[in-house]
Amino acid sequence: MNIDAILKRIDDNIDESLERLFALLRIPSISTDPAYDEQCREAAHWLKEDLAALGFLAEVRDTDGKPMVLAKPAEPTTGDKPHILFYGHYDVQPVDPLELWDEDPFAPRIVTREDGSKIIVARGACDDKGQLMTFIEAMRAILAVEGRLPVPVSVLIEGEEESGSPSLPGFLAKSGEEIRCDAAFVCDTGMWDAETPAIALSLRGLVGDEITVKCASRDLHSGQFGGPARNPNHVLASILAALHDETGRVTVPGFYEGVTETPAETMENWAGLDMTAEKFLGPIGLETPAGEEGRTVLEQVWARPTLEVNGMWGGYTGTGFKTVIPAEAHAKVSFRLVGDQDPDKLREAFRAFVRERVPADCTVEFKKHGNGPAFRVPSDWPILKIGEEALNAEWGKQTAMVGMGGSIPIVHDFKYGLGMDTLMIGFALEDDNVHSPNEKFNLSSFHKGIRSWARVLAAL
Amino acid sequence: MNIDAILKRIDDNIDESLERLFALLRIPSISTDPAYDEQCREAAHWLKEDLAALGFLAEVRDTDGKPMVLAKPAEPTTGDKPHILFYGHYDVQPVDPLELWDEDPFAPRIVTREDGSKIIVARGACDDKGQLMTFIEAMRAILAVEGRLPVPVSVLIEGEEESGSPSLPGFLAKSGEEIRCDAAFVCDTGMWDAETPAIALSLRGLVGDEITVKCASRDLHSGQFGGPARNPNHVLASILAALHDETGRVTVPGFYEGVTETPAETMENWAGLDMTAEKFLGPIGLETPAGEEGRTVLEQVWARPTLEVNGMWGGYTGTGFKTVIPAEAHAKVSFRLVGDQDPDKLREAFRAFVRERVPADCTVEFKKHGNGPAFRVPSDWPILKIGEEALNAEWGKQTAMVGMGGSIPIVHDFKYGLGMDTLMIGFALEDDNVHSPNEKFNLSSFHKGIRSWARVLAAL
Repeated sequence: MNIDAILKRIDDNIDESLERLFALLRIPSISTDPAYDEQCREAAHWLKEDLAALGFLAEVRDTDGKPMVLAKPAEPTTGDKPHILFYGHYDVQPVDPLELWDEDPFAPRIVTREDGSKIIVARGACDDKGQLMTFIEAMRAILAVEGRLPVPVSVLIEGEEESGSPSLPGFLAKSGEEIRCDAAFVCDTGMWDAETPAIALSLRGLVGDEITVKCASRDLHSGQFGGPARNPNHVLASILAALHDETGRVTVPGFYEGVTETPAETMENWAGLDMTAEKFLGPIGLETPAGEEGRTVLEQVWARPTLEVNGMWGGYTGTGFKTVIPAEAHAKVSFRLVGDQDPDKLREAFRAFVRERVPADCTVEFKKHGNGPAFRVPSDWPILKIGEEALNAEWGKQTAMVGMGGSIPIVHDFKYGLGMDTLMIGFALEDDNVHSPNEKFNLSSFHKGIRSWARVLAAL
Repeated sequence: MNIDAILKRIDDNIDESLERLFALLRIPSISTDPAYDEQCREAAHWLKEDLAALGFLAEVRDTDGKPMVLAKPAEPTTGDKPHILFYGHYDVQPVDPLELWDEDPFAPRIVTREDGSKIIVARGACDDKGQLMTFIEAMRAILAVEGRLPVPVSVLIEGEEESGSPSLPGFLAKSGEEIRCDAAFVCDTGMWDAETPAIALSLRGLVGDEITVKCASRDLHSGQFGGPARNPNHVLASILAALHDETGRVTVPGFYEGVTETPAETMENWAGLDMTAEKFLGPIGLETPAGEEGRTVLEQVWARPTLEVNGMWGGYTGTGFKTVIPAEAHAKVSFRLVGDQDPDKLREAFRAFVRERVPADCTVEFKKHGNGPAFRVPSDWPILKIGEEALNAEWGKQTAMVGMGGSIPIVHDFKYGLGMDTLMIGFALEDDNVHSPNEKFNLSSFHKGIRSWARVLAAL
């Protein structure tokens, strides 16, 4: 492989790469809201067409939910080189609160910042459209220069990652054998900082659950009924408040089963990254770490389980005032899992905890959202070393080998369902506003991201 | 006064009375939502025109908020008969959740129930358009038969009762002398049951406050930041959960200052009304009384202060799931006051309680909503007796002399600002869905309500 020619080709064609990314960003493929079903399908078809244009046998596969994009090599694989499965997701987070966006979230644009650097602004600019396109553009450059890829590559792009991947287990059960490769590559993680690349060695698992507490059979006037009538807002607030103790530990019985202390060596490595609570919290306007007492911020987000109330609502939430006792109150709660914590057991323990606290003549209903255990890549995996050296070469700095606080459930499924380990390289930055208004991706992240993947592929 | 002729005139013209009520109900005069400013003004003008047609000197008075309707006798009052001020409100509650309404809340209609009885269904059918029109229609019938009212009557109809009457103090300060009468009549309360009329001797006061807890400077990804970053949903839930102790008492320091135990005699009277927890809670789908332990339901809603969370929200509340740690969380909280509880002191005590519980690098903001102390009418007021006998005659049953759990702040202002006591007679029923979807007013309540007021006026 002529890596210099490939990199030059990437540099010369960055505007065209950007145009393609913009076309994908214009499609509002919000998976969690059924109103955008058609747009999710449109994004899947756009990717299928693009991969087909690169010579893949590409198709859109229907599922019970959003469709999958699956692309396979046109020529049969010989088995003497590792077959790589690249995974990404075309769906994006909702955009609310819309009024906090400077512009239409689905009208991507380049903004030049005060320091002269350029950023791509749009929902999905980073997570995950911008990131997944770094890999596709890297393949496009290699194919243009070399006429072939160095190893066989398949591509799987799902459309439900932001809503807990409900259709993925069924899809993998049915089509797992067909997509099984020798290793998986995922581009959905972050850099250590704007100059230092990173490879993620671990991910926290995720359990999402929704609670609905129902009390009276209808909304009540709080003057007529305030006092004797149970208020579900009070019931729910008490339950949510009881989920943590005063030291920040989660109080659900059995919650810490399967969690082991981080080895001293790992803790030392992390200490070497010099991340303080001030550095971690400063950019988001905070100073005082919350969460478990006596744990560093990196340990908390990389190696400790957490429980967060992602949404709660009950009663009147509009302008002005309404003296109502609502019939229902709701919360969306998620857990981040580490080590060997069992998602199903945790969900049941959580639900039992909630049920115990619901008064006699009120009821509680649950709705299951995402479900995936934690993941850790073996430290002696040869592909890790290839990735590390390729990133060192592109960025001119030692790659940070990190943990990740987020969850990519499919990485676990690849490992335990299909026996594939996953190389997680990503180019997101802390200030990319992922899942927030004004999501962005640095143009340099996109550009050097493409170059990074080209180097990784060429080195295989 | 020829009361029989007046009552016959009411019976003969009930369809026309209903038509006028429907015209008023069609105007969506929601005061708490600024989007309905114009409709509030329209309702005020409709009432002004109707009162002018009855011979009043009627006008719409602008305030800092919604306008007031003020109507005075065309002839000068002589002072030998008590001058009555009738008060009502033309504004209504918001209609959300709209999907729980069987029909458009502002398309009033008559529905015949399975037992053959008829109900008027619309937002405001009862509270307070249906109720205030019983008084206006009673005056119309007397004027048609007698050509004059037995006593001078003025009418004040405000448009902010459902949003805490923010402009009322300013209006009363400026125009109080002009509207001062000898007694006030209000039709915004309830019957004891569908057969038994009631006169309300007391009202609970109201303090409304809104809390906003702010933590990070933006919404965060709960995977990236879950743990170290403070979650305002957790902060708020802990505060809300701490507001009551395990016996249902409010924990805000000083909350029970000015609250005295209900006299044994009053408790005995209430016991005679035979209201059990089962009867009170059954119709709303509950069995077990919440609130203060060891207090009967009537004591709780008529003679004890309460604190209710009327609304709370934070983070993602839409369909599906979003793993966000929000930047803010909110709650709307109201207190019902009794005895000599001081609204301003209570609000300050509440805010201090909240501030104490907000972690160091988070902030809290407050927004004041309604504010009014509790009220009690003197038991030896002569007009009480006139009202009681008129109701006994119309309904053929002994009128119940009751307390009320709700709040009508103006009744206090009439008493302590203008020296007027208030006769509170109303025809609402527990199942009228006041402040809820499918609000209704029994046609018989409307009809016999008009007849009741005609009897009260004629007896003066």
